Amino acid sequence: MAGPVRPLAVGGVAAILAIVAGQPHAREGMFTPEQLPAIAKDLRDAGLKLDPATLGDLTAFPMAAVVSLGGCSASFVSPDGLVVTNHHCARGSVQFHSKPEHNYLEDGFLAASMAEELPASPGSRVFVAVGAEDVTEQVSGGLGPALPPRDRFQVMQDRRKALMKECETDTGHRCRVSAFFGGLHYKLVKYLEIRDVRLVYAPADAIGRYGGDIDNWRWPRHTGDFAFYRAYVSPQGEPADHSTDNVPYQPAHFLAVSAAGLDDGGFVMAIGYPGGTSRYARHVTVENRFEREYPRAIKRSRDRIAVIEAAAPEGSDLRIRYTGQLAGINNGMKNAEGQLEGARRQRLVERRAQRDAALYEWVAADEGSAPLAQAIREYDALARESAEVSRRYYYYNGARGSQLFDVARRLYRLAREQQKPDAEREPGYQRRDLRSFRQRLSRLDRGYHASVDKALWMHGLGGYLPQPTENRVAAFDEALGLAEATDDAALSSMLDGYYANTVLEDRDTRLALMDATPEALGEHADPFLRLAAAVYDSDMEREEASKTRSGRSNVLLPQYMQAIIDWQRSQGRTTYPDANGTLRVTYGTVLGGSPMDGLVYEPFTRLEGILEKDSGMSPFNAPARLLERARAKDHGTYRLESIGSVPVNFLTDLDSTGGNSGSPTLNAHGELVGLLFYGTLESVVSDWDFNPRTTRTIHVDTRYMLWVMEKIDAADWLIDEMTVVP
Amino acid sequence: MAGPVRPLAVGGVAAILAIVAGQPHAREGMFTPEQLPAIAKDLRDAGLKLDPATLGDLTAFPMAAVVSLGGCSASFVSPDGLVVTNHHCARGSVQFHSKPEHNYLEDGFLAASMAEELPASPGSRVFVAVGAEDVTEQVSGGLGPALPPRDRFQVMQDRRKALMKECETDTGHRCRVSAFFGGLHYKLVKYLEIRDVRLVYAPADAIGRYGGDIDNWRWPRHTGDFAFYRAYVSPQGEPADHSTDNVPYQPAHFLAVSAAGLDDGGFVMAIGYPGGTSRYARHVTVENRFEREYPRAIKRSRDRIAVIEAAAPEGSDLRIRYTGQLAGINNGMKNAEGQLEGARRQRLVERRAQRDAALYEWVAADEGSAPLAQAIREYDALARESAEVSRRYYYYNGARGSQLFDVARRLYRLAREQQKPDAEREPGYQRRDLRSFRQRLSRLDRGYHASVDKALWMHGLGGYLPQPTENRVAAFDEALGLAEATDDAALSSMLDGYYANTVLEDRDTRLALMDATPEALGEHADPFLRLAAAVYDSDMEREEASKTRSGRSNVLLPQYMQAIIDWQRSQGRTTYPDANGTLRVTYGTVLGGSPMDGLVYEPFTRLEGILEKDSGMSPFNAPARLLERARAKDHGTYRLESIGSVPVNFLTDLDSTGGNSGSPTLNAHGELVGLLFYGTLESVVSDWDFNPRTTRTIHVDTRYMLWVMEKIDAADWLIDEMTVVP
Repeated sequence: MAGPVRPLAVGGVAAILAIVAGQPHAREGMFTPEQLPAIAKDLRDAGLKLDPATLGDLTAFPMAAVVSLGGCSASFVSPDGLVVTNHHCARGSVQFHSKPEHNYLEDGFLAASMAEELPASPGSRVFVAVGAEDVTEQVSGGLGPALPPRDRFQVMQDRRKALMKECETDTGHRCRVSAFFGGLHYKLVKYLEIRDVRLVYAPADAIGRYGGDIDNWRWPRHTGDFAFYRAYVSPQGEPADHSTDNVPYQPAHFLAVSAAGLDDGGFVMAIGYPGGTSRYARHVTVENRFEREYPRAIKRSRDRIAVIEAAAPEGSDLRIRYTGQLAGINNGMKNAEGQLEGARRQRLVERRAQRDAALYEWVAADEGSAPLAQAIREYDALARESAEVSRRYYYYNGARGSQLFDVARRLYRLAREQQKPDAEREPGYQRRDLRSFRQRLSRLDRGYHASVDKALWMHGLGGYLPQPTENRVAAFDEALGLAEATDDAALSSMLDGYYANTVLEDRDTRLALMDATPEALGEHADPFLRLAAAVYDSDMEREEASKTRSGRSNVLLPQYMQAIIDWQRSQGRTTYPDANGTLRVTYGTVLGGSPMDGLVYEPFTRLEGILEKDSGMSPFNAPARLLERARAKDHGTYRLESIGSVPVNFLTDLDSTGGNSGSPTLNAHGELVGLLFYGTLESVVSDWDFNPRTTRTIHVDTRYMLWVMEKIDAADWLIDEMTVVP
Repeated sequence: MAGPVRPLAVGGVAAILAIVAGQPHAREGMFTPEQLPAIAKDLRDAGLKLDPATLGDLTAFPMAAVVSLGGCSASFVSPDGLVVTNHHCARGSVQFHSKPEHNYLEDGFLAASMAEELPASPGSRVFVAVGAEDVTEQVSGGLGPALPPRDRFQVMQDRRKALMKECETDTGHRCRVSAFFGGLHYKLVKYLEIRDVRLVYAPADAIGRYGGDIDNWRWPRHTGDFAFYRAYVSPQGEPADHSTDNVPYQPAHFLAVSAAGLDDGGFVMAIGYPGGTSRYARHVTVENRFEREYPRAIKRSRDRIAVIEAAAPEGSDLRIRYTGQLAGINNGMKNAEGQLEGARRQRLVERRAQRDAALYEWVAADEGSAPLAQAIREYDALARESAEVSRRYYYYNGARGSQLFDVARRLYRLAREQQKPDAEREPGYQRRDLRSFRQRLSRLDRGYHASVDKALWMHGLGGYLPQPTENRVAAFDEALGLAEATDDAALSSMLDGYYANTVLEDRDTRLALMDATPEALGEHADPFLRLAAAVYDSDMEREEASKTRSGRSNVLLPQYMQAIIDWQRSQGRTTYPDANGTLRVTYGTVLGGSPMDGLVYEPFTRLEGILEKDSGMSPFNAPARLLERARAKDHGTYRLESIGSVPVNFLTDLDSTGGNSGSPTLNAHGELVGLLFYGTLESVVSDWDFNPRTTRTIHVDTRYMLWVMEKIDAADWLIDEMTVVP
């Protein structure tokens, strides 16, 4: 017989059984800071020991310790601006500095001291929220019902831009106006934008990305998904470009790191910046997405993967260049497949129809509800229209699937926008956006090659050409000369002309073209630029129509959301807004689960699981020292007795989505016990419909983080810098 | 939120926790009937309520109720010869009768009465063991140490053949001499060979094969893997060919079927015919298999799948014809991958080296052990030689990978063997073998096409041609003209000549050639036959060498096995012989498990699991009525309260392997509670090394079987025929 019989988590099983006993379980909800006082009792009942009243304050503990990296969440863990986030959120910076002679991805990176810290990859930011203000009245106030939708859209957009501009007159800050409850409320959030961000420590991929794409979305998981940045500011304490003169940023608050951690069933709370959910989407939208768009997107992903794999053969340099894109498409496809499977299992489409009907019934029961009922019907009609437009132009969007064409269109749009005063420009093309615009143009080099780009474009056109006239765009057909592309060979040779004559492959040229006029671009020798100019008017027409629909939505959606809020209140429920990239709190407990009949997820994984999985081959190739220390059961002070080992990852019933990556996971006392890094594959459908039985979020345990730091990577100076509490 | 939160098996969790408490767990061992008295106390301690003393008697209850189908196990469940086995063991018969106008695979088959039962597929047999005799002395007695190995092999083979021939003079019986403990013992078993076997009932594939290849080897599982045959004999009670005059066979004993079944932790025992294990294989053999042969076999499987898929495109008639072979290759590959992964996880190769060393140390500690130590060393040298030969001819074996060439070689061998007196012929070519020889020749038509066969042969030759001279077979190279096959095109056109001029594609011709002389075949116009004749002498030389090695093994292996037995006895353990296709008993308990850190298998699956998995698409397309009855929670008398549903499949810690499929699973009182149908993928490596933590066997629960029979398929007359006990 092989291997010792190891203990199972007794507590874990008990917690799972608690489901049977009907004890509190997964609590749906991504609450805004403002909502926390309203759910203070629930928080206390769930086990929170902090005063819920202070939780709502952005400038107080613990909120002030939580930051956004733009797409990821993170938190301060020292008075000297040390930031902890997921390894996968900081990996771009590790990659940026990796060279054959010092492969930090493979070996990990640990600065020996502050002086040795490396600049994070270009564009890296730490956003510290410093204030928030309700601007509902300023955005949507005083607009009469007679205002035409297109005008409504424009007025509201202009007001939002003006609010942000005004806010950003405070140098070093970035501001954003976000819609909540579909536009029922608007909030202006002001962030300190720290732009000297440095890489302090990232364990080797063989720890931080352990399990790689194979374990991605899966439980059981054994990933050391943590890494450290540090935020720097000028000696005057202002955000500044990277400079050796800069000094560590002193946050108002930082988190203590728990070395005692949690046990099964323990209270947890995660604070972060979830990107987006669609929990209140109507049946019309859900049906379109799940019965049409996801299946089509999966097929397109599969096709695009095949195209890239054929054009960039395994082992070629090209393949390396497209690795990131392949991983991204694969990841999106896996997500979409998880969405579909989850929707099937919980009969999402059917259930959403039932919810719509139940709401409608509740609304209709009320006297004087006719206008609201009418608004909901109109909103459904609008959603149907939007779905139809999306379907109609699905293949046209695919037919534009060349990165160079995308660059050309963005450059031409920029040229047009720059003819207007800054305040009137489209968001994304204003002065405040140019830095990231430039970075995006620069980045093309990392993941582009003409042969692959052409193959992808050919594939996109291949789907478009057989479409009937109503799904085609005449200006595009004419400008590209699709009438002459009688067969694949003709089409291919025509596209060859594009790539032979383009100037956009040169980075400096691309950047220089940011200052060109529309006329210069329209008459440029570059065929992509001419094509972009030729389709501009036609694309704008579609954008205008879309903005008109948004204007209609701006009237209807808030009415629907108010109905949802009132309806849920009548059931004793507090409605939380869909995720929108703003700060949210989710709370719950450490909890295993049963993703399907016959199978149980334990709440914790152990060091022994790494020994089991490790094959010595990537992505299951933990460092020799880690294996040796794990075999020796050198648990130090990080052992969890109930599982007989150091806990590596754990599961909770928290409500999270993309953007939450890196969110600090806190115990009842507000100490850091883990970093949230993903949901399980069964959970992804919770973006649409939260299922408490199957939704589980995965975290890396701070005990594993500290164990790796102490026993494997000897990151003692960082442990010393943090406040580690027993 | 979606779906109700369903109860988890409290009992299941308790049993898993029992592992922690150090209670008895998975007991390795496939015991022969003779060994049962020796382990009577263990059986009673484990919970058996039957008298262990009676268990050893082949002609008593319950052994007499257990039969072999040749490759599968089964049992009698009525006084009228009703036999229950796995669906996958009887599916060939369902397929045999399926036609577009009555697709029994899709719809299931249920005879309305005995008169409507259908003949099982050609060659189907029910073997009832009627006696067993130790023949060790008759096989291996009186052979002096000086006897040359080749002669020893021949004498022993001749003695075995003579014993079987003598035994089979009793008409209607089939006899087999099997070696135990590597030839330390020999046993002659005599079987009644019932050859009128009829298909009584098989549920639809959508029940009996639910989950198909996707769920194959996996837990959680929801497969209704059961079907019914009936054994018929002549009115005189003798085995007879199919005839309407025949009458149901009256078995000496049959099993009562439990409708109460088991709960978690309950005692179970399975009786059946496991095919083969290698638990005592030496490090030399294990290393060769796991570090060379399995990886190479996986690669070959993957290649052959690609070749077949390319030559027989998806959706073509050809693909349908090769579906069975594709499934077989896939299944073997998945098994090999499971073996490798299991071996890696339990460090099999390293552990086997340790075991060899420990045994050697124990042996060496004994005075006068030199001859035994020497024998073990010699056995290792022999194992090394065998491994080398196997490696050396790996590509040659691949180069013979054409089905037609295989037919030709068997026909030519038959012609040569038929020149000898029957007693001297090679096993497989004796008079007693001709019926199955003929059936095998006939079956070719079902899964053959020249284009695919040629593609596979080309692929095999492609691997062989680059081999160095020492790995080549000169006679083969010369006869096939490989020197002239300078490139793929030349090789391909040469092979085209083989297929253009063969007569072997015609079934009647193949069968007629069974009577041809070697001379006639050697000069036949058929190029495959001439090739077979040309390589015969060279292949025979290798066979002679192999038989000489077997003769050496006949001396050495029993000494090694005796050492193992003595060593294990010194540790208080009863050594059981490797599986060899003879009747065995394994006992243990219903028990979930943890295949890996963080994941727990519950011991039972439920009807609700079918509702979860069901997508309406094969292989997850249960019949509408089943879904409807499951949704309605129409559990009848088959509900297991501890899981709140009808149990579908269950896990045990029983020790099983291929051949055990269909084995009756009995409770402490000897009532049928399930049918064993497979191990989990983590368990396949137990063929080499039994790991009690990860080895789990999957069974279909009789409660699910009865539920389907009563609620879905209305098989009332069969339920009435059986003795169902509450």
